[in-house]
Amino acid sequence: MSYVSKLCCTYCATTYPKTDLMNLCPKDGRPLEIIIDVAKVKEELPEFSWYRPQLKSMWRFGSLLALDINNEQDRRNIVSLGEGYTPEIPLHQHPLAKKHHFNLFLKDEGQPHKNFGSNPTGSFKDRGMSMAISMAKQFGVKKVVVPTQGNAGDSLAEYAMKANMESVVIMPDDTPMPILGRVSALAKMHDNVTIELVKGTIKEAGQLMKEKYVPQGYFNMATFQEPGWRIDGKKTLGLELAEPNDGLNQAWSLPDVVLYPTGGGTGILGMWKAFDELQALGLIGDKRPRVISVQSEKTAPVVNAFDSNQDDSTIVEAGETIATGLNVPGGVGHFKVLDIIRKSRGAALAVDENSIKENLKSIYHNYGIWICPEGAATLAAIEPAIERGLIQSGDKVVAFNTGSFEKYLPNVRKLLFV
Amino acid sequence: MSYVSKLCCTYCATTYPKTDLMNLCPKDGRPLEIIIDVAKVKEELPEFSWYRPQLKSMWRFGSLLALDINNEQDRRNIVSLGEGYTPEIPLHQHPLAKKHHFNLFLKDEGQPHKNFGSNPTGSFKDRGMSMAISMAKQFGVKKVVVPTQGNAGDSLAEYAMKANMESVVIMPDDTPMPILGRVSALAKMHDNVTIELVKGTIKEAGQLMKEKYVPQGYFNMATFQEPGWRIDGKKTLGLELAEPNDGLNQAWSLPDVVLYPTGGGTGILGMWKAFDELQALGLIGDKRPRVISVQSEKTAPVVNAFDSNQDDSTIVEAGETIATGLNVPGGVGHFKVLDIIRKSRGAALAVDENSIKENLKSIYHNYGIWICPEGAATLAAIEPAIERGLIQSGDKVVAFNTGSFEKYLPNVRKLLFV
Ligand SMILES: [Zn+2]
Ligand SMILES: [Zn+2]
Repeated sequence: MSYVSKLCCTYCATTYPKTDLMNLCPKDGRPLEIIIDVAKVKEELPEFSWYRPQLKSMWRFGSLLALDINNEQDRRNIVSLGEGYTPEIPLHQHPLAKKHHFNLFLKDEGQPHKNFGSNPTGSFKDRGMSMAISMAKQFGVKKVVVPTQGNAGDSLAEYAMKANMESVVIMPDDTPMPILGRVSALAKMHDNVTIELVKGTIKEAGQLMKEKYVPQGYFNMATFQEPGWRIDGKKTLGLELAEPNDGLNQAWSLPDVVLYPTGGGTGILGMWKAFDELQALGLIGDKRPRVISVQSEKTAPVVNAFDSNQDDSTIVEAGETIATGLNVPGGVGHFKVLDIIRKSRGAALAVDENSIKENLKSIYHNYGIWICPEGAATLAAIEPAIERGLIQSGDKVVAFNTGSFEKYLPNVRKLLFV
Repeated sequence: MSYVSKLCCTYCATTYPKTDLMNLCPKDGRPLEIIIDVAKVKEELPEFSWYRPQLKSMWRFGSLLALDINNEQDRRNIVSLGEGYTPEIPLHQHPLAKKHHFNLFLKDEGQPHKNFGSNPTGSFKDRGMSMAISMAKQFGVKKVVVPTQGNAGDSLAEYAMKANMESVVIMPDDTPMPILGRVSALAKMHDNVTIELVKGTIKEAGQLMKEKYVPQGYFNMATFQEPGWRIDGKKTLGLELAEPNDGLNQAWSLPDVVLYPTGGGTGILGMWKAFDELQALGLIGDKRPRVISVQSEKTAPVVNAFDSNQDDSTIVEAGETIATGLNVPGGVGHFKVLDIIRKSRGAALAVDENSIKENLKSIYHNYGIWICPEGAATLAAIEPAIERGLIQSGDKVVAFNTGSFEKYLPNVRKLLFV
């Protein structure tokens, strides 16, 4: 069995047995996290025997994860489609990096790269869903439901199919066609998959989930509403940031700045958890990257709260942004995102639609990389980050491209060619 | 009313009244064509008064078409989404064009270009479907069905929706996801649209259409099985080839060589019809381009028949080609394709999968144009065409890119980036 010791509320720190199949903390409705007994990993598995670097997927982090691929019984529950283990692509020629003398990298979750893993549905959501469906399988869950702005939807459907579970995906009816179409096609082809469309955003999708599907016994796989599963999958983003390129002899270390597009914020919680676990393991010290949470100015609840020194976000009106994954008006985990960015001496920054488009375009033309609008938003945040002194000369800066360009066609094609 | 005079069988030349709502010729099961009374157009509409060059769509050819946008009553039946009027992009730097001193152009049906029209579903099928749904509307048809290898499917669904008709689209279950997904999504979102998936190719799709939907009163919109409507839409490809770039003062003229990817062959019949009508109108003489029909060597019924001097194709086994639109094992119009390519002193050429992939790749890298595998096949046929003396120094050569790269993702992305 894995080294999971218990569940813990991210807000009130109440703990719950690891064998409880829960959703949010019953006391305060906040997200739960899975606690890994890292001290025990350290004691029982010295000299990297917890680690499986030959695996080209996120499961390489073996005993640090909620399901341990080193363990025979856990291994049978792991539902993997090759997700994670993505490269950091150097953008040394980026004009701002050259002008201000920092080292810029793009962590590319969107498209396959030789000698790396690859997210099967073309976005970072696959990390969370691989872990969440694997954990659901361990608990004997047979029916799952997710509300989504898009990328979590085709991801859930694929992993649920692989695990022979029934799945329901609920998304806005204006979700980009490659995602909406893909899930519609899966629903057409497989009795196990159902798609529901709503007017509005993930908020309305979540309402329909609670009214119609949770009462029918579908397990709620919404961001943060499963018991820390998706966070523990996204945690691998942070583990990969620290992982040395070249074998076990190099030091593990973190970048100086991380730019991350924020809808719900699972990735930020996951990365932060990873850093703490790596420190507990003795692989890194207490220094943390400045975490910069990037949102679209059209829907910026975290930025609003950060700028006005609030501890939590207030729900905003959904806006109209090409970065549909950022059109998330509020979230039960935003308080923790705010806590993390403050602790890290980072910030929350809003970027405008035009700068998202320009960055998407320039990365395509200069590097031939197809990034998604959310990834372009992180690059658009570099200039304001420099102006606020958040990026300095000599820094290693990692911007996240969370998904593939392809999933936003034809909107993004129109940017490039007409 | 338009200048349509009657219907005529492409095989036995029997004529039928233009008011008959028919499918294939009842005598021999061959395709019908719509006869336009060009002499009457010439007499009644001198000095280009039949022509509407200000319209950025295929409907610019006004009174030469089966529905005449110059006519009030016809205009009410025209269902247009901006299709046609696509550019010929010069590929002057193409190594074979430079080496052998000919002028190469790509007629790009796939992506929008400034100051031109644009096919709404990203393929040449939109020309045929715009005309076919418009004609169906004129006849009061309320329910339509089409079997397809892909591109005709989303096209039919879009035009039928625009016309408030019910549509059924039947396609192979391995149709590329951007098409299969799009039609699935339309079917999910609109009660008027139904999708059916079959194992196999358009052949099996056609069988299901006849067994299940034609008996329910759905009008058969399969290639060639409607009464010449799709041919008359595709005819605009030929009219555009001849149309001068710059106003009415330049001469209309044809290229020396046309390379065209051939599944059913509607486009070749349509272009040939266009040339004849332009000659009848006095705009061009009797010289015709050498028409080169291009197929994948995996599914090459027309090439087989051409090479063995047969008058018609024999049905082959469906193959596995990245150019799914070419995976058409036989066709009721192939006899006419063979007749046309022989009359034109052209040929039918089969290309291998690797050369399709290489051409797709090189056009992307050299010109930034996203062509589809069928379009890449026409470029792959240039080298064998030169070897056979079909392309000569000084020729104007037009290769057709029939659709967008995007509709074949992720298969084509994998070619370029992994
Ligand atoms: Zn709590
Ligand atoms: Zn006949």
